[in-house]
Amino acid sequence: MKISDKFSKNLNEIAEIAGIRRISKTSEKIGLPPGTLLHVGEQKVEKTIIRMIDYDQNELREIEVDTIDQCQQYKDSPTVTWIEVYGLHDISIIEQLGKVFEIHPLVLEDILNTGQRPKFEEYENHLYITLKNLLYDEESESIKSEQISIVTGSGFVISFHEINSNLFESVRNRIRNSKLRIRKRDVDYLVYALFDTVVDHYFGVLENLGETLEELDSILLQKPRQEHLQTISNLKKCFIVIRKSVWPLQEIINNILNEEYTLINESTLLYFRDIRDHIHQIIDALETYREAASNAVDAYLSVLSIKMNEIMKVLTIAATIFMPLTFIVGIYGMNFKFMPELEWRWGYFTILGVIFGLMILMVIYFRRKKWL
Amino acid sequence: MKISDKFSKNLNEIAEIAGIRRISKTSEKIGLPPGTLLHVGEQKVEKTIIRMIDYDQNELREIEVDTIDQCQQYKDSPTVTWIEVYGLHDISIIEQLGKVFEIHPLVLEDILNTGQRPKFEEYENHLYITLKNLLYDEESESIKSEQISIVTGSGFVISFHEINSNLFESVRNRIRNSKLRIRKRDVDYLVYALFDTVVDHYFGVLENLGETLEELDSILLQKPRQEHLQTISNLKKCFIVIRKSVWPLQEIINNILNEEYTLINESTLLYFRDIRDHIHQIIDALETYREAASNAVDAYLSVLSIKMNEIMKVLTIAATIFMPLTFIVGIYGMNFKFMPELEWRWGYFTILGVIFGLMILMVIYFRRKKWL
Amino acid sequence: MKISDKFSKNLNEIAEIAGIRRISKTSEKIGLPPGTLLHVGEQKVEKTIIRMIDYDQNELREIEVDTIDQCQQYKDSPTVTWIEVYGLHDISIIEQLGKVFEIHPLVLEDILNTGQRPKFEEYENHLYITLKNLLYDEESESIKSEQISIVTGSGFVISFHEINSNLFESVRNRIRNSKLRIRKRDVDYLVYALFDTVVDHYFGVLENLGETLEELDSILLQKPRQEHLQTISNLKKCFIVIRKSVWPLQEIINNILNEEYTLINESTLLYFRDIRDHIHQIIDALETYREAASNAVDAYLSVLSIKMNEIMKVLTIAATIFMPLTFIVGIYGMNFKFMPELEWRWGYFTILGVIFGLMILMVIYFRRKKWL
Amino acid sequence: MKISDKFSKNLNEIAEIAGIRRISKTSEKIGLPPGTLLHVGEQKVEKTIIRMIDYDQNELREIEVDTIDQCQQYKDSPTVTWIEVYGLHDISIIEQLGKVFEIHPLVLEDILNTGQRPKFEEYENHLYITLKNLLYDEESESIKSEQISIVTGSGFVISFHEINSNLFESVRNRIRNSKLRIRKRDVDYLVYALFDTVVDHYFGVLENLGETLEELDSILLQKPRQEHLQTISNLKKCFIVIRKSVWPLQEIINNILNEEYTLINESTLLYFRDIRDHIHQIIDALETYREAASNAVDAYLSVLSIKMNEIMKVLTIAATIFMPLTFIVGIYGMNFKFMPELEWRWGYFTILGVIFGLMILMVIYFRRKKWL
Amino acid sequence: MKISDKFSKNLNEIAEIAGIRRISKTSEKIGLPPGTLLHVGEQKVEKTIIRMIDYDQNELREIEVDTIDQCQQYKDSPTVTWIEVYGLHDISIIEQLGKVFEIHPLVLEDILNTGQRPKFEEYENHLYITLKNLLYDEESESIKSEQISIVTGSGFVISFHEINSNLFESVRNRIRNSKLRIRKRDVDYLVYALFDTVVDHYFGVLENLGETLEELDSILLQKPRQEHLQTISNLKKCFIVIRKSVWPLQEIINNILNEEYTLINESTLLYFRDIRDHIHQIIDALETYREAASNAVDAYLSVLSIKMNEIMKVLTIAATIFMPLTFIVGIYGMNFKFMPELEWRWGYFTILGVIFGLMILMVIYFRRKKWL
Repeated sequence: MKISDKFSKNLNEIAEIAGIRRISKTSEKIGLPPGTLLHVGEQKVEKTIIRMIDYDQNELREIEVDTIDQCQQYKDSPTVTWIEVYGLHDISIIEQLGKVFEIHPLVLEDILNTGQRPKFEEYENHLYITLKNLLYDEESESIKSEQISIVTGSGFVISFHEINSNLFESVRNRIRNSKLRIRKRDVDYLVYALFDTVVDHYFGVLENLGETLEELDSILLQKPRQEHLQTISNLKKCFIVIRKSVWPLQEIINNILNEEYTLINESTLLYFRDIRDHIHQIIDALETYREAASNAVDAYLSVLSIKMNEIMKVLTIAATIFMPLTFIVGIYGMNFKFMPELEWRWGYFTILGVIFGLMILMVIYFRRKKWL
Repeated sequence: MKISDKFSKNLNEIAEIAGIRRISKTSEKIGLPPGTLLHVGEQKVEKTIIRMIDYDQNELREIEVDTIDQCQQYKDSPTVTWIEVYGLHDISIIEQLGKVFEIHPLVLEDILNTGQRPKFEEYENHLYITLKNLLYDEESESIKSEQISIVTGSGFVISFHEINSNLFESVRNRIRNSKLRIRKRDVDYLVYALFDTVVDHYFGVLENLGETLEELDSILLQKPRQEHLQTISNLKKCFIVIRKSVWPLQEIINNILNEEYTLINESTLLYFRDIRDHIHQIIDALETYREAASNAVDAYLSVLSIKMNEIMKVLTIAATIFMPLTFIVGIYGMNFKFMPELEWRWGYFTILGVIFGLMILMVIYFRRKKWL
Repeated sequence: MKISDKFSKNLNEIAEIAGIRRISKTSEKIGLPPGTLLHVGEQKVEKTIIRMIDYDQNELREIEVDTIDQCQQYKDSPTVTWIEVYGLHDISIIEQLGKVFEIHPLVLEDILNTGQRPKFEEYENHLYITLKNLLYDEESESIKSEQISIVTGSGFVISFHEINSNLFESVRNRIRNSKLRIRKRDVDYLVYALFDTVVDHYFGVLENLGETLEELDSILLQKPRQEHLQTISNLKKCFIVIRKSVWPLQEIINNILNEEYTLINESTLLYFRDIRDHIHQIIDALETYREAASNAVDAYLSVLSIKMNEIMKVLTIAATIFMPLTFIVGIYGMNFKFMPELEWRWGYFTILGVIFGLMILMVIYFRRKKWL
Repeated sequence: MKISDKFSKNLNEIAEIAGIRRISKTSEKIGLPPGTLLHVGEQKVEKTIIRMIDYDQNELREIEVDTIDQCQQYKDSPTVTWIEVYGLHDISIIEQLGKVFEIHPLVLEDILNTGQRPKFEEYENHLYITLKNLLYDEESESIKSEQISIVTGSGFVISFHEINSNLFESVRNRIRNSKLRIRKRDVDYLVYALFDTVVDHYFGVLENLGETLEELDSILLQKPRQEHLQTISNLKKCFIVIRKSVWPLQEIINNILNEEYTLINESTLLYFRDIRDHIHQIIDALETYREAASNAVDAYLSVLSIKMNEIMKVLTIAATIFMPLTFIVGIYGMNFKFMPELEWRWGYFTILGVIFGLMILMVIYFRRKKWL
Repeated sequence: MKISDKFSKNLNEIAEIAGIRRISKTSEKIGLPPGTLLHVGEQKVEKTIIRMIDYDQNELREIEVDTIDQCQQYKDSPTVTWIEVYGLHDISIIEQLGKVFEIHPLVLEDILNTGQRPKFEEYENHLYITLKNLLYDEESESIKSEQISIVTGSGFVISFHEINSNLFESVRNRIRNSKLRIRKRDVDYLVYALFDTVVDHYFGVLENLGETLEELDSILLQKPRQEHLQTISNLKKCFIVIRKSVWPLQEIINNILNEEYTLINESTLLYFRDIRDHIHQIIDALETYREAASNAVDAYLSVLSIKMNEIMKVLTIAATIFMPLTFIVGIYGMNFKFMPELEWRWGYFTILGVIFGLMILMVIYFRRKKWL
């Protein structure tokens, strides 16, 4: 069935985000020495694509990279070098990049394992950030997530993507415009721009969910059906998925703001402070939506209780009035030979009178009980 | 339908306060470089109005400002200059003000984006406070919010409003009275007066909600209808909206009280401490109302359960007594040729006796079960 | 109706304690400059009464004060001067006291505004404590509260009361006994004694509530009625009111214990530590009672569900057995000319057999389903 | 009734543990000066019994003390003197002990007031610990508690008990065995041993409750009755009582471990750390049991809902099938003179056909709706 | 019955993990002096097996140990000595090991008591870690746990197991491969490897539970039965068991990361940081699953409410339509001599008309009420 399909998709996603599902695909990995590279996650693109932008205030070079060696020369240049890697299944490429840019083996392992919790780690020569890019699939009412890893060292930023999305197209466009601030600043500003783009993207996802929630909210008050409750249940799962992706960002951003990292300039911190505000807003909105979803269901169930009560009253009134009356007319439907009342001249009308008298009495009784 | 309209209004408001809705209006903005000014929010007034009051202990000037250049001269005077801007859609005015008073671009951006979370930020030359002014619209049972931004630097305070309310009329009146304390003090006291006015306003909103809650509380015990549960649901949403506006104020006020800002004098802190008390009271009241609302619904649903039980008892007693009896009289209503009982002289009266005997037995049984 | 009256009384009280209700009575006050004295609250006594006790280890004077000037001379004496003010509506008296004892205007304002949250504040020459005295009104099942303000400076303690209660009679008695410790100590010990008396009073209120709760707990298991659920709802509101009054006391007492105030001697802190223990006990008890109240309702509702299930079983069994049988006897009550069974010699007894057979089968079926 | 008796017993116990009940017995005490000794609690033994053990590594004396003066001489000896006082109603004995061992009056007051919250306090010459000994009374399904106070100073430990239990018999036995560690160590180890014995005792109580919970858990899935829900409610109350006794122990033990007390040697702290682990285990178990109890009830109520649904389906199917049919046969049971169908040759069989056709249609309908 | 068996198994496990059950087996132990060795737990293997691996970068020796004395010589060698003890019932072996490796008596006691909460303790010469190895038994839908204790000192690691599992086989294999990092590093890395293996194992358990949860989630939306709710209840218990095992690990790992231990090298901390990430992921996943389980049940119960409402509507409509009609036809089934309608020519058809008129009216009424 379709509905339950949607459900499992969401639970799958939860499992993936929580980093649980990775095991089934690497059960052989349990107990393996750390440091063994292994792609944990689905292969989502056919071929790994590597793009490179190298820029400073005056110059700009964009290259579609074929072999990693091409990057070598840009690494040591004073310009900002931004390498985007789309597709993680080709381990040899990741390994080469690791070698060229001296990335710590544990970082490489984390990049390949797409079941990471968002985190920020400092290593000797570079900083490592993992984020989740989220997509709301309206069709299946579920959240898809993609892991984005950012490694930055002196003069270079490398971003690793699972799929070939154009999430960072806007950043590339800004770089292409030589008048914008991004061209005048160092790698830390580029990292900020990437981080900000990912976080800004969450607002769109939340808005989609918010619209669905609003629609449901109105429907639940009119003619709700079973599916609507299931959609709400799906929404709640989506909120869980987003929360798992956003909550750790607070820790990350506080870490960036409070610790002093040589790679991040004082003046860029003001921009990261802006990201912190956005993260707070997202978390606020999430909590609000979760509460609103719960309230909607609660209100609906209360309304259901009231309706049930009314239905039962109607039933009980009908039954309590007509069952005794039917019993009485049943008595005079009996075929006994000797039933004196049947012979009476006014028997029929007497009984009719008794019956309507009873009816009126019962209506009065129910009115007193405020059932009518 | 009307009711669901009210609902969506509230959810809209939640989305707006949480800063979510802004995206739909600026989807093109995602990924834009920070620093690009853009009004995010509805245009709520036709024309931007700018008022200026310039005062010290002895003198007072009130001007309706037409061009920003008029402000220039007051900026550098030793008097307190308070500029009120009503209407945010005219970006050029905001930009000019930014230039004249040297306001940081990120601040200007935040002023124009009405989906801000209340916050307090220190910049090199000025302090920036964003607050929410709340209005309870009894008609639609929803909270409307307006963003108020206050920028203060040496000798000047600028307040930005979305609509042309007269919320600050009382402050203006106090300034006009040359004997009052406000005339003797610096910009920090004016900021306090504005902040205090906004916070005091919340009490009125809460009182309106409290009255609605009280009414509902009594009704729920007597003859509740579906709408009342929906009104409670609406109230809960209002509480969420208010909480989102008030909660961050704690952080702001603690920040003001604990950090040392050159613009805020030690002696004014005593007054800000007063605001802190008010914020605590508002939060207390909010929690209390939320609890009271939940309790009211719970109590109501429990009462509903009891009533349901009683209704079912009546139904069951009626059915259990009359269905067997109707069955018995049905037997003797059959038209079989050979039914010996029908011929008996006392058959009818025997059966009547059996029936009433059964009736009494069942009444006794239900009494034993404490159903009667 | 009576019940809903009780409800609103409690919500009123909540609003008052939370400091919300004050607004309706002073809506004109919003935006007024701080420092304007105004009595916010009901006038609860006809005439303000002022009592004064002046004592040291050897001497004791008790005076009913008529004019504030009488107090002047005692203020500067080295003895402990305790002034009790009953009734707050006469603002001129409060103002005079403020002048004589140099009380900060913000304190005077807070004393007159009876919607204060309990708090403790240090000013240059005096300490200011606001407390709530609570009374359980068994009649209306609600908590009444009275605000008690204590101002203490070098050599004097002034307590402000809304009503002319004799809450502090026991303290007066102790002062009258020249052998007791209170006569040998300074104002800090008197403040302790007053504070302790207020807190000890809460135990009595809690005990009343506890007894009501116990009664309800037993009744809910036997023959509960709608009113009992409403009383529990009332109790819960009382718990909220008390919590709002007691919770801030923790902060106050920790403040007294941890900060160093010149007015409070080291040796008196041991006694304040005792108050802290009492506050902990009260909070513990409150939480416990709230939990117990919730548990009682939950247990009751569960029991109701079980009963409902049993009732429905009885109904269903009765209906499922007798409706088919009534249908069968209905068939043979039809008046068709040609109904061969009616003519059969043993038709009647065959049908009776069939009917009782069916009955037995259904009883067996229900037994299998464990419904019987 | 028996069940409600059990309930009130538990609530009584809660009140006592929370220190609330004490007031009813000492209402005259409110406002009394602190320092007036007064036994608050029931007299649980007839006569106060005082035992004394005085030991060091080599010697051991056990004495049943008659007059407090006997203790005087041991107090100043270098040996460890452990005095056990069973029964608190004889205030003069407590007072004498207080004088001989120089115990602070506030401590004496707390010892006599059996409504204490467990606490640990340092005084100039001694440390004071209050604990609760718990007993599960399976008969009334309630927890009984006894307050145990331990006062320790240089060279002596005094333990105060409400009843003459042999809780500490095992400690006495260990002391009697000269080879054990306890004989070689100072008073701090004795305090540890007493504390540990009390805490270990909780495990037994928890185990009893756990067994009852397990039994209930299985029963609730089979044939639950009202009493079982009440027993669960009782269990929950017991958990509350235990939590109130155990929770403050964390604070106590952390206090002992983190502060430095001259009376407690560094090497003994290792043993107190062991107690901390036990307290954590008890709190863990409590939470787990509470959750398990809630889950059991929830699962049971869900099962009840499913059953209710099934019952209602049966009822509805029976009624919906047989009520129209009974109506139809009722039509042909009417005695109108002119009813053409009655005269038809195949009227009876036609109607029978119609009836069974309807029956089959309705069965198909219910199957489609998945009710059958 | 089978189901309730499963339930008790889980509760048993909870009790065991919480360290409660140990008491029943050692009730005689209460009050015993600490330091008396006693195996608390079931004997799960027949014979204690001891394996030893002694290695450095160049050499490797694996020995099945018969007598503890064999270990003596390796203890003082500079190589890493890893001793695995399977089976804890043979106290003498544990005691000997304790003597040879100078393990603190309190540690030995904790190793033997399998009701430990996971913990980490530092002693003079060694570190002590207790962990829980978890196994999901799909058959009984319960979690089995095994306590694993790790003692490490300079040059040696001893791991104690309750059963002869091959959990650590993968670690042994890595040690056998002389090229791997583990051979080049000290005991701290071995401890990390063991710790990591245990934690990684939790992912597998969680995945099993997650799959069961997913299955249930789909079923609950289609044709749920009582058992499914019970399985969910079982799952919840499993989550509790796992949480109790995982939660304390946070404390342990933070302790290792934040304190400085001479036995743990700076460079190994990076690996322990990896474990911390895994623990966070597991806790995240646990919370997510618990929420998902609750949501699933809530959604299901809401759906049940909707269905119930629909069922009741059908019943009420059927009853309310047919009961009055049956009453009417009953009237004309009475056998009174004088019933004028019966004689009317069109009486029968009139009544039929009245009946169908009523029917149509009622259908219209129910449509208006939106019941049809």
